[in-house]
Amino acid sequence: MIRAAIHGASGYTGFELIRLLLKHPKVDLVALSSRQFAGVPISEVFPALRGVCPLVCTEFSEVELAKAVDMVFAALPHQASMNAVPLLLKGGAKVVDLSADFRFRNARVYSDWYQPHTAPELLREAVYGLPELHKDEIKEAKLVGNPGCYPTSVILAIAPLVKERAIDLDSIIADSKSGVSGAGRGLSLATHFCEVNEGFRAYKVAEHRHTPEMEQELSILAGREIKISFTPHLVPMTRGILSTIYGNLTDGVSPRMIVEIFNEFYKDAPFVRILGDGVFPNTLYVRGTNYCDIGWKIDERVNRIIVVAAIDNLTRGASGQAVCNMNLMFDFPETLGLLRSVWQP
Amino acid sequence: MIRAAIHGASGYTGFELIRLLLKHPKVDLVALSSRQFAGVPISEVFPALRGVCPLVCTEFSEVELAKAVDMVFAALPHQASMNAVPLLLKGGAKVVDLSADFRFRNARVYSDWYQPHTAPELLREAVYGLPELHKDEIKEAKLVGNPGCYPTSVILAIAPLVKERAIDLDSIIADSKSGVSGAGRGLSLATHFCEVNEGFRAYKVAEHRHTPEMEQELSILAGREIKISFTPHLVPMTRGILSTIYGNLTDGVSPRMIVEIFNEFYKDAPFVRILGDGVFPNTLYVRGTNYCDIGWKIDERVNRIIVVAAIDNLTRGASGQAVCNMNLMFDFPETLGLLRSVWQP
Amino acid sequence: MIRAAIHGASGYTGFELIRLLLKHPKVDLVALSSRQFAGVPISEVFPALRGVCPLVCTEFSEVELAKAVDMVFAALPHQASMNAVPLLLKGGAKVVDLSADFRFRNARVYSDWYQPHTAPELLREAVYGLPELHKDEIKEAKLVGNPGCYPTSVILAIAPLVKERAIDLDSIIADSKSGVSGAGRGLSLATHFCEVNEGFRAYKVAEHRHTPEMEQELSILAGREIKISFTPHLVPMTRGILSTIYGNLTDGVSPRMIVEIFNEFYKDAPFVRILGDGVFPNTLYVRGTNYCDIGWKIDERVNRIIVVAAIDNLTRGASGQAVCNMNLMFDFPETLGLLRSVWQP
Amino acid sequence: MIRAAIHGASGYTGFELIRLLLKHPKVDLVALSSRQFAGVPISEVFPALRGVCPLVCTEFSEVELAKAVDMVFAALPHQASMNAVPLLLKGGAKVVDLSADFRFRNARVYSDWYQPHTAPELLREAVYGLPELHKDEIKEAKLVGNPGCYPTSVILAIAPLVKERAIDLDSIIADSKSGVSGAGRGLSLATHFCEVNEGFRAYKVAEHRHTPEMEQELSILAGREIKISFTPHLVPMTRGILSTIYGNLTDGVSPRMIVEIFNEFYKDAPFVRILGDGVFPNTLYVRGTNYCDIGWKIDERVNRIIVVAAIDNLTRGASGQAVCNMNLMFDFPETLGLLRSVWQP
Repeated sequence: MIRAAIHGASGYTGFELIRLLLKHPKVDLVALSSRQFAGVPISEVFPALRGVCPLVCTEFSEVELAKAVDMVFAALPHQASMNAVPLLLKGGAKVVDLSADFRFRNARVYSDWYQPHTAPELLREAVYGLPELHKDEIKEAKLVGNPGCYPTSVILAIAPLVKERAIDLDSIIADSKSGVSGAGRGLSLATHFCEVNEGFRAYKVAEHRHTPEMEQELSILAGREIKISFTPHLVPMTRGILSTIYGNLTDGVSPRMIVEIFNEFYKDAPFVRILGDGVFPNTLYVRGTNYCDIGWKIDERVNRIIVVAAIDNLTRGASGQAVCNMNLMFDFPETLGLLRSVWQP
Repeated sequence: MIRAAIHGASGYTGFELIRLLLKHPKVDLVALSSRQFAGVPISEVFPALRGVCPLVCTEFSEVELAKAVDMVFAALPHQASMNAVPLLLKGGAKVVDLSADFRFRNARVYSDWYQPHTAPELLREAVYGLPELHKDEIKEAKLVGNPGCYPTSVILAIAPLVKERAIDLDSIIADSKSGVSGAGRGLSLATHFCEVNEGFRAYKVAEHRHTPEMEQELSILAGREIKISFTPHLVPMTRGILSTIYGNLTDGVSPRMIVEIFNEFYKDAPFVRILGDGVFPNTLYVRGTNYCDIGWKIDERVNRIIVVAAIDNLTRGASGQAVCNMNLMFDFPETLGLLRSVWQP
Repeated sequence: MIRAAIHGASGYTGFELIRLLLKHPKVDLVALSSRQFAGVPISEVFPALRGVCPLVCTEFSEVELAKAVDMVFAALPHQASMNAVPLLLKGGAKVVDLSADFRFRNARVYSDWYQPHTAPELLREAVYGLPELHKDEIKEAKLVGNPGCYPTSVILAIAPLVKERAIDLDSIIADSKSGVSGAGRGLSLATHFCEVNEGFRAYKVAEHRHTPEMEQELSILAGREIKISFTPHLVPMTRGILSTIYGNLTDGVSPRMIVEIFNEFYKDAPFVRILGDGVFPNTLYVRGTNYCDIGWKIDERVNRIIVVAAIDNLTRGASGQAVCNMNLMFDFPETLGLLRSVWQP
Repeated sequence: MIRAAIHGASGYTGFELIRLLLKHPKVDLVALSSRQFAGVPISEVFPALRGVCPLVCTEFSEVELAKAVDMVFAALPHQASMNAVPLLLKGGAKVVDLSADFRFRNARVYSDWYQPHTAPELLREAVYGLPELHKDEIKEAKLVGNPGCYPTSVILAIAPLVKERAIDLDSIIADSKSGVSGAGRGLSLATHFCEVNEGFRAYKVAEHRHTPEMEQELSILAGREIKISFTPHLVPMTRGILSTIYGNLTDGVSPRMIVEIFNEFYKDAPFVRILGDGVFPNTLYVRGTNYCDIGWKIDERVNRIIVVAAIDNLTRGASGQAVCNMNLMFDFPETLGLLRSVWQP
């Protein structure tokens, strides 16, 4: 058993971590850190936890947290994280950071899209926590930068095609759709029920901060710089991301090769369900799970492939992936505590 | 480990049973019986189960089922069940029946509200599967009639008050609201998305078949016949029932006595969460769980109590309760496989 | 043509007033008053109005408003209204006030449930704007207190029965369910999409401020003081209220008498649609309209009647009724601008 | 005043026609034809119409209909329409056909995607009813093929860019998202509330029948054959389509030129609201209206433009556009009966 804490426990990813860790056979969740709700039982913050989780939110310092536990999930806002994480590491804890602060290899990219980085030296040792791409490094890591929700779905959908150059690397377009929980638990008109219900819209078109994250990982796979178009949309539902990705097929790529490329790439990936050609995923079928479901179609009329991937943005897109990363960092089985948790309807 | 089967696996309660049994540490789910989907993998019927459950729907006879397993969950329609259950019992299986066919002690009541009963002799040995009321009998039972979803919420909400005669037994009114999954997976205009969304309505007012079920159990508790008014409503959401129950307080009943009555009645009930006076449940907080959350308010101006109870209609109102009954029938801990499964958002 | 203004135009009732007044053949909507959005085109506050309404929100004083128009709809918060309305009246405008400030005949009742009243002398001349009950007085009024959304549905549902003493006046229970727009456009966790979706709950049980409003009007009809139980609930939808009202039938009241009582009471009411015995309304069918749909059922087993009424909380429950009141105050046909505006799906 | 009928009145587009025609100042809606509901008042088929529309569904022959009215809206299924329309025209009625049967200039294209055409001679005289492209021909037409919902949004979004060759004509990708009412009122698991709620998915990827319709119109505008990729998705909401369209910018096209191209193309289009660069539409803001809202963003990093367009699939995508076409065919003002009908929330 290891001891774990959540730093910044009162948001939706915090809740999702609690939900998953309470069922994890090798984790003892011992501390929930929250400034805003210091002194408040977590079961008042999230009434679903009444009688289930007795912990009280406390404003712990990083030093206290690192002393008390083996593993910290940092679910803080961007910028707050890069101040907290160095202290947690220094105290000896392993860290999975759910913010964007440790996802980038290049501090310049981070500063171009976010703000100046105050702990750039850690970027070298931080590992991008997408297990299908970096499993071995994650196993050795003390700090994992947990991927963004959109990038998780987009990268998984086309990583095999990019790596095998099955598509024109300059033609990639990712059109993504997310449920409202991706915007967090904070209040805004954009998450008011009456403004969301019966509304569907695009936002931050061609300027969403998840773009460089996708480009970093796809570029590594391709061995050369890739730029993509990325358009996020908001769906009137709570959970789920569906990404539809377009790419022009390279000459000579056959439908059968596509099948083989996907099967080979994900042959050891317990959390990728390949649906195949002509079968498409649904956010409904991955709710609460760590799965990424992937299907595709070749549009022969225009020689383009359309790959569709679905994840639960809070599970695979955040907290479930974080738990998977923790499993790897502590040499537990990759799927421990994350299987058999399906949900439909 | 016991071996279990689901007879009629392709509906929503079937899915919910699969979801729960796959996580149950003492159950090996070995057979899914379905006439409609015979030959079809359950993961095609419910794509959420892809890679999770390899079973294929098969049209088993009751003899085959009883031979293959220790425990059958009968999730058949009313009437089909009373033909199937005697054969299952004869074959030696224990049965939790999720239809209405074995919920009544009196065959006359059943025939008044449903149709003539073809296995009335079994009504004497069948136990009404509400663990908070009949735990000891359930432990000895070979056949449990699993309660209806509405009755579960209504009976639990006022059983303590009825037993203690804290309310006028002739004044009980239950106003219940249910998500759409209560109507099942069958097709009808009433479950068409565009007819449900932004719609809220009452139906079967004062003539819903769950009424006599509530009256039976409340009458037993009171030691005299009780009749109530019951109004069900349809809510534009998938899961959840919230019941609001009204009763005129008996003279001399104080707020403090109410607290004591509830605490005493449910002191050994792991699945009832008493929220107390002035705190009210929300279907959101019980999703996917076997909890029944109960709160109340005394309306002093009119000397009436309003009790509000929330359950998940598919879990506590059907399949979760069925698994709990199985736990009791096989002398497993009551909560085995049913705890720590919360969900919010 | 008359000139009209909306004082407090940026909320949902403000929008609904704009929507209705833009289509009204006798009204020229000339001013939108808003402090929060002063200087902002209303089409930025409500993008649906792009190209439809060129008005710009302005922080008008009451003196300016009264000078500029014949009619002011005051859609201000409680308390703000009782300061503004006297000035509007003094300036010569007629006023329909959508807050609670001018709904009560008795300042003591208002102060018991809200706060001290600063313009109690106006309560005597203000008319409660439920046209089915007070049409003649509304026609003569300079100030109409527009009814609350819940009271509109509850009073209309049982006014005929109360007036005719067809039910025991001490047995009335109103169980109401409202869409989220009733909570307004302000931000709170209670209206966050992820906290509403799949959630159904009761709130302010036995202490909602709309209770005394219902009691005032029902007491007048009965000729004696009536107290009722009232429980509001929140439904995961945007618009609509459905109220289910229970009352014990007086001895000797037959089903046929009930039909006659309703038909007689509403024989001149263009906005009440009587569905009759055994037919029940649905919020979906009244969306965007000024209708109140009413059906009922006699529960003979317990000699109780259940009346169900549905309205659109923003139209009949607020702005549509306000426009209807304006029609009466200016001697326009009662239904002018309010008919033929149906919506389904 | 003209006399109008709806042939096939019981579906959602039928309802939407009724809703709009009841408010139209120049139309007398006199007949509702329906085989399935012959003899049933339309207010039973759509209870929102109680007290609003007294018409009774009748199974009229085409000869009867043509004799009785000036204008028939054919809201029949594909294939049924091409049998009915010739008889209606022969009888002297003008027809707007809402099926796909008269949208194509080339019978071969129709037969490739649908089935053999039985009235190919009428394709020459039928006009594709997108007023922004074919206003003059619609004015002279006796038969208008009303556009599909998806094509309306996609064509309007990029027609200006295609006509001016501002984008590479081989790079067009349309990613569209539709509410559930687009699937009609028929029953299927795909429209069951519990299968739609919290679900988002793609369907008929690269093989939806609306593809050739878009290609036909864009090819005409470009003066050469265009093929596009089209992916439809289902959104858990009732109404609305949002289309996101991608195209590679032609060398030398500046942001300012894009603005001018849109403004010029739509300078006489009362139902297109151009939001401009960086402002994006929302289905919520066009509900119930005939507007198409269009915004865009130039992704300079990859020299691509992303255009986003929103419509109400039942209004602009079907019945509203049909009424607009009728207006043109009878020389009424284009916007008659279609303005000032906004809706938010």
